[in-house]
Amino acid sequence: MSRGEDTRDVVLEAALSQAVVLGLEGLSVGDLATRIGMSKSGVFAHFRSKEKLQLAVLDLAARRFQSQVIRPAFVAAPGSERVERLFVAYLRWMENGAGAGGCLMVTAAQEFDDRPGPVRDRVVDIAAEWRRVIRRTLVEAIESSDVDADADLDQMVFEFMGLALSFQQSARLLSETGARQAAVRGLRRMLVSAPRLRPQTPTDIAGALHA
Amino acid sequence: MSRGEDTRDVVLEAALSQAVVLGLEGLSVGDLATRIGMSKSGVFAHFRSKEKLQLAVLDLAARRFQSQVIRPAFVAAPGSERVERLFVAYLRWMENGAGAGGCLMVTAAQEFDDRPGPVRDRVVDIAAEWRRVIRRTLVEAIESSDVDADADLDQMVFEFMGLALSFQQSARLLSETGARQAAVRGLRRMLVSAPRLRPQTPTDIAGALHA
Repeated sequence: MSRGEDTRDVVLEAALSQAVVLGLEGLSVGDLATRIGMSKSGVFAHFRSKEKLQLAVLDLAARRFQSQVIRPAFVAAPGSERVERLFVAYLRWMENGAGAGGCLMVTAAQEFDDRPGPVRDRVVDIAAEWRRVIRRTLVEAIESSDVDADADLDQMVFEFMGLALSFQQSARLLSETGARQAAVRGLRRMLVSAPRLRPQTPTDIAGALHA
Repeated sequence: MSRGEDTRDVVLEAALSQAVVLGLEGLSVGDLATRIGMSKSGVFAHFRSKEKLQLAVLDLAARRFQSQVIRPAFVAAPGSERVERLFVAYLRWMENGAGAGGCLMVTAAQEFDDRPGPVRDRVVDIAAEWRRVIRRTLVEAIESSDVDADADLDQMVFEFMGLALSFQQSARLLSETGARQAAVRGLRRMLVSAPRLRPQTPTDIAGALHA
C-alpha cells in the first residue's frame, strides 16, 4: 500500500467516525483536517469535493457492514439460524454507533430521503442490496423447511427491517434495556408464524366454501 | 396575537420546514433570516440561541402531531379501529415530509441519540409520550375485547413503531409503492394474533407436563 493510500484511509476512518455522529451532511473537510492534523488542501487532494468524500465514506461503511454483519452470519447453516444470526449482528451494528460503523446508513437514509443526487442514489443502492441479502436468507429458510413455503418474503423483509429500526430507537434514544429481547422475540414470532403470500380474506374463505 | 408573536410564528414555521429537510442541526439562523427576509439580529431577538430555536421547533412539531395524528384518531371508537386510525395517521405524517411536519421526530431521534443535552431530553420526552399514547389505545383495545387480554403491550408498542419506521424507509427512501399496505397488514396481524405477555417456551411446556 502506498503512502497516499495510507493517508486516504486515515482520512476516511476519521470521516466515518464523524459521519456516524453528525451525519454525512455534517462532514466538514476543515474539521476533518484539524482532527487528523492535516492541511485542508491535503484532505482535498484525496477527495476533491464533499460529495466525493460522502460517497467514499458510504462505501467504507458498506464494506465494514459486509465483514461485520453479513459474512459472520453466513457462517451459520442456511435456515432460521442464519436469519437470526444476521438479525442479531445487525442489531449489534446499530448499537455500536460510537465505534466506526453504527447507524450511518439509517442516518444517511434520513438525511437523503428527500435530497436527490449521487449520494441518495448510493444510499438507495446499499439499502436495496441489504434487503436482497435478508431476502436470500429467508428463501434459504423456506428451502430448509424452517419457514412455511407460502411465506410472503416481501412482507417478512419489511418486518425484519421494522424490528431492527424500532430496536435502534428503543436502545439508542430511549435506552430501553429490553429492546434487544423485544426485537429478537418479534423476529422469532415472524419466522414461526410467517405472514402468508396470499392471506385468506373472509371473501376467499366464503369463495372456497361455495366452490 | 401581538405583532411580535406573529413574527415569532413566521420564523418558527420557516424553521420547521427547514428542519424537516436538513435536520435540527442543519438549522441556521442566518439562512432562516435570509429566507423570510428578516435581519439575523431580528431572528435572534426571538430565539436567543440555536438551541432555543431547536426546542421551539420541536414543540411546534409536537403540537402539530397532536392535532394531525392523535386528535383525529381519538374520534374513532376505542378498540382496534382507533389503533389502526392512529397508525394510518402516523404513516401519513411520516410521508408528508415536504409539508410542515413529516418525519422531524425520526430525524431528530437519529441526530440526537448520541448527543446529550436539552434537545435530546426533549426528543426523548416526546418519543416516550407518543409511546404512551399508542399504549393507551392498545389497553382500550383489550378492554373492548378486540385484543387478547394477555397481550404483551410493550412488545406491541415496539412492533407498532417498527412497522411505521420500516414504512418510512420503504416509502420515502426506496419509493416502494406497497409500503403502506405492508405496514397496515403487519399491524392487523399483530392485533389479531397479539404477542402474549408470558409466551410459553418449550421449557415452560415441559415444566407444565411434569408439574
